[in-house]
Amino acid sequence: MCRWLAYLGEPIQPSKLIVDTPNSLVAQSLNSPLGAQTVNGDGFGLAWYPDATAESTPAVFRSIEPAWHDENVRELSRAIETPLFFAHVRAATLPPVQKTNCHPFRYESWLFMHNGVIREFPRLHRQLALAIAPELFESVRGTTDSEVLFFLALTHGLREDPVGGLARAIREVEQVGRAHGIPYPVQGTFAISNGSTVWAFRYSSERRSRTLFHSEDVTTLRMLYPEVERLQGYGEQSRVIVSEPLSDLPDAFHEVPESTVAILDMNGYRHEPFLQEA
Amino acid sequence: MCRWLAYLGEPIQPSKLIVDTPNSLVAQSLNSPLGAQTVNGDGFGLAWYPDATAESTPAVFRSIEPAWHDENVRELSRAIETPLFFAHVRAATLPPVQKTNCHPFRYESWLFMHNGVIREFPRLHRQLALAIAPELFESVRGTTDSEVLFFLALTHGLREDPVGGLARAIREVEQVGRAHGIPYPVQGTFAISNGSTVWAFRYSSERRSRTLFHSEDVTTLRMLYPEVERLQGYGEQSRVIVSEPLSDLPDAFHEVPESTVAILDMNGYRHEPFLQEA
Amino acid sequence: MCRWLAYLGEPIQPSKLIVDTPNSLVAQSLNSPLGAQTVNGDGFGLAWYPDATAESTPAVFRSIEPAWHDENVRELSRAIETPLFFAHVRAATLPPVQKTNCHPFRYESWLFMHNGVIREFPRLHRQLALAIAPELFESVRGTTDSEVLFFLALTHGLREDPVGGLARAIREVEQVGRAHGIPYPVQGTFAISNGSTVWAFRYSSERRSRTLFHSEDVTTLRMLYPEVERLQGYGEQSRVIVSEPLSDLPDAFHEVPESTVAILDMNGYRHEPFLQEA
Amino acid sequence: MCRWLAYLGEPIQPSKLIVDTPNSLVAQSLNSPLGAQTVNGDGFGLAWYPDATAESTPAVFRSIEPAWHDENVRELSRAIETPLFFAHVRAATLPPVQKTNCHPFRYESWLFMHNGVIREFPRLHRQLALAIAPELFESVRGTTDSEVLFFLALTHGLREDPVGGLARAIREVEQVGRAHGIPYPVQGTFAISNGSTVWAFRYSSERRSRTLFHSEDVTTLRMLYPEVERLQGYGEQSRVIVSEPLSDLPDAFHEVPESTVAILDMNGYRHEPFLQEA
Repeated sequence: MCRWLAYLGEPIQPSKLIVDTPNSLVAQSLNSPLGAQTVNGDGFGLAWYPDATAESTPAVFRSIEPAWHDENVRELSRAIETPLFFAHVRAATLPPVQKTNCHPFRYESWLFMHNGVIREFPRLHRQLALAIAPELFESVRGTTDSEVLFFLALTHGLREDPVGGLARAIREVEQVGRAHGIPYPVQGTFAISNGSTVWAFRYSSERRSRTLFHSEDVTTLRMLYPEVERLQGYGEQSRVIVSEPLSDLPDAFHEVPESTVAILDMNGYRHEPFLQEA
Repeated sequence: MCRWLAYLGEPIQPSKLIVDTPNSLVAQSLNSPLGAQTVNGDGFGLAWYPDATAESTPAVFRSIEPAWHDENVRELSRAIETPLFFAHVRAATLPPVQKTNCHPFRYESWLFMHNGVIREFPRLHRQLALAIAPELFESVRGTTDSEVLFFLALTHGLREDPVGGLARAIREVEQVGRAHGIPYPVQGTFAISNGSTVWAFRYSSERRSRTLFHSEDVTTLRMLYPEVERLQGYGEQSRVIVSEPLSDLPDAFHEVPESTVAILDMNGYRHEPFLQEA
Repeated sequence: MCRWLAYLGEPIQPSKLIVDTPNSLVAQSLNSPLGAQTVNGDGFGLAWYPDATAESTPAVFRSIEPAWHDENVRELSRAIETPLFFAHVRAATLPPVQKTNCHPFRYESWLFMHNGVIREFPRLHRQLALAIAPELFESVRGTTDSEVLFFLALTHGLREDPVGGLARAIREVEQVGRAHGIPYPVQGTFAISNGSTVWAFRYSSERRSRTLFHSEDVTTLRMLYPEVERLQGYGEQSRVIVSEPLSDLPDAFHEVPESTVAILDMNGYRHEPFLQEA
Repeated sequence: MCRWLAYLGEPIQPSKLIVDTPNSLVAQSLNSPLGAQTVNGDGFGLAWYPDATAESTPAVFRSIEPAWHDENVRELSRAIETPLFFAHVRAATLPPVQKTNCHPFRYESWLFMHNGVIREFPRLHRQLALAIAPELFESVRGTTDSEVLFFLALTHGLREDPVGGLARAIREVEQVGRAHGIPYPVQGTFAISNGSTVWAFRYSSERRSRTLFHSEDVTTLRMLYPEVERLQGYGEQSRVIVSEPLSDLPDAFHEVPESTVAILDMNGYRHEPFLQEA
């Protein structure tokens, strides 16, 4: 339903990944070969941390113009440098298209973005909104299923335990959904960051989730593809997690397995099972 | 906080009232002398019924561009004719500015618009949202205090009894607000229509409400101002209710008293007390 | 590069053709199977005449939101009725995407829209702009090749002779283009109206033009497809000319031949050769 | 007609000047006491250089939303740091409001912005457009008088001699204007930068130009106002040139005289006469 990208590594211009690669996120806004929809023209968001330390507050730029023709996206993503950013292009499951419905969503120093859906969300919306902690309720700014899931995860302790917080939120949505007769309520890939670590989840109630990939080490890539010039522009610690590969270089991207969370920090990736029990 | 206009009468081009008068609603978007703010540049809405019979569904055009420079507003308001329309320019008390926050709000064949505020709405939002009938909850599309008030009024029977429905909704907001220590929770003027009647309310908890006016009969106006050419363009049954006068012709507009509802149908106006008891 | 639709016939809600058909123009904004690009998300325009008499002035609504998610498009196209309208979804060859670059273009009572391109327009722009009659120059509001072509046609007498005016304008562009070493300067389909007749052209310098179709008579269609309910919603004189068919009903749409102008008025279509000589 | 601000000094978050001062540029978008219009809600632009060396290319962010409610303006201006930036809020003399008409205008490493008008520009537009060097013509992206003046100045050698280039461009506009019977064709204040110097002009044909001010030295200001905390957030070399003062601290801003150019670099200001001869 959407496409997203998360980067952690040496400070970089986001444009190098979201504009200047063959299958960049901006290119995917017009044509994403692996997407549930091929067009992701219902809004764009870019959130970036000034430095890669926990607790710094990210800036967020949002636009309802299709990313492929929004000149601000190009200007801005070339003018900044950041060690950790999230970018997202939206294909709206449901209207309305408005900035407050553009991912990534931010709460204090935390970011969240999502590709996927809470099925039959209009039927579940009220009950899920009520399950958000009252002190968080007014910080919900838009009307998407994704943002409600983020605030449910915050309610369930995301800030102390990101994996557990999201797991408990998904379980709650599944419980509410099944009570409404919806067999597979949750579908998607999810990204969370606190400014120093990225948690990227692949999970769906039916165990057939949207695609998710992370990049090979840059040093390995440079050995594999000495002729690809743009690889020289990335730092050695540069790593991205993406809905679909940014290029068709074989071995440049590895699929994150079903029901798994990929945890990325300055030391690299590690995978952990996520909600693998029934 | 906003300016609005409601028209009922012979079919008319809305432009005649919202563009082509000295202090038209579009002019008020840039400069409204009687407004709590003088600039109402945070969105525009126009809703119009195809005919003046109850139960027809109005169309709604919304824009987040300031009305004074939105060419669609001029084009559209000249191209249509309608016997009953609502128009509104917004000065946002709270962000965000987005189409779903532009008045008038519509539910089935009903329209609602508001100039004013529910005070400290962020503190009351969750409790008021919960008070909306569950089957109506998902039809709330934006995040304004005004739309919540509309859906509370629908919950309290607006469709059967517009005056009573709004009265009960306001009382509920006042009760919730006072429980939060807010002495004067509700402020404003309000307009409701079902397609054949317009109810226009002036009310605030502190009994010092935003301004509200309705027009003198066109035949009287023509006698008073035989030299004012644009009066010839209005039908004999043309009547408008407005936040502030569209011209400075003396006696062209009459103030609606405090705590009063002006009820307008094809037979003209009548006033009734509204929430005058403490 | 774009998709368009022109309608002439009994007054109709434009939504019946641009929203509520299987391959409607709004559907084509997201996916146009026959298009040079499949996505036409760079702006929308709707221009409609109040009646089908020459010299009435059409209204124009323009939006830079993709048509597939613009709620104003749905609202407006359902709320109006018109005997003659043009609608257009844009896939921008060149930026910028802005309302002044959205087709249809209007000059007095005339409308123009285009699917195609003047090749290497930036190199030709200045010379072509200078060729516009000085008294028309300031009425050019945007920066597209299409609008320049329209004003060249106006300069060359479009208002007295639409077919000759456009033919001379195209010849001028071809001459200027070839002087710059561009072998095939003009490509496209073009639509012109004065409010009572529609001229629809298929022409390109290389004689391989974008697709263009017109509809079969409604009475014939109803005999062919008695089970297709929406055909009952069209008047007997309803005719559309389109970049690509609105449905896959065989025989519902006929291709306009290369280098041909289809002339449509209340009496039906006729074809004439257009710039068939070398 | 507009309000603008140019900053040169130690790298700074633009928000400190355009958001977080009592009469900030964003505040002036809603209410500019000294402006020809008090509302400047017809677009916003921010252009910033990555460093204060000549020949670096500035980034440009543009928005047609009123600056006072555009959350991207706040986010972005807080997230970047720059030693030299231009910011502008527009009050459109003429439509259309679109990003390509938002100042500052950029050509290569040069920036230009303007508060004022070329009078009766529609009558002069064609002749002035033709006077732009043919090789620059296609780089004109919008339709404002201001951008045409910038490209005339580029045509007349702005890149080699900013003061002389603008002087010759203004003289050309005055000549063309007077040939059309316009006694006072040019009005305004103008800012130019190459990335290391700012040239700020106050000039009008009638010698009664829009207001222009530059700031007192920060060290002086701190001595004058030891209690004003935000002064501690500025570097010692921080200097701004503005359409109107950002605060009402007496002596914080000095008026630039009529027919004068204020030249600002890292060494401070100097004034030179500009077109003082008749």
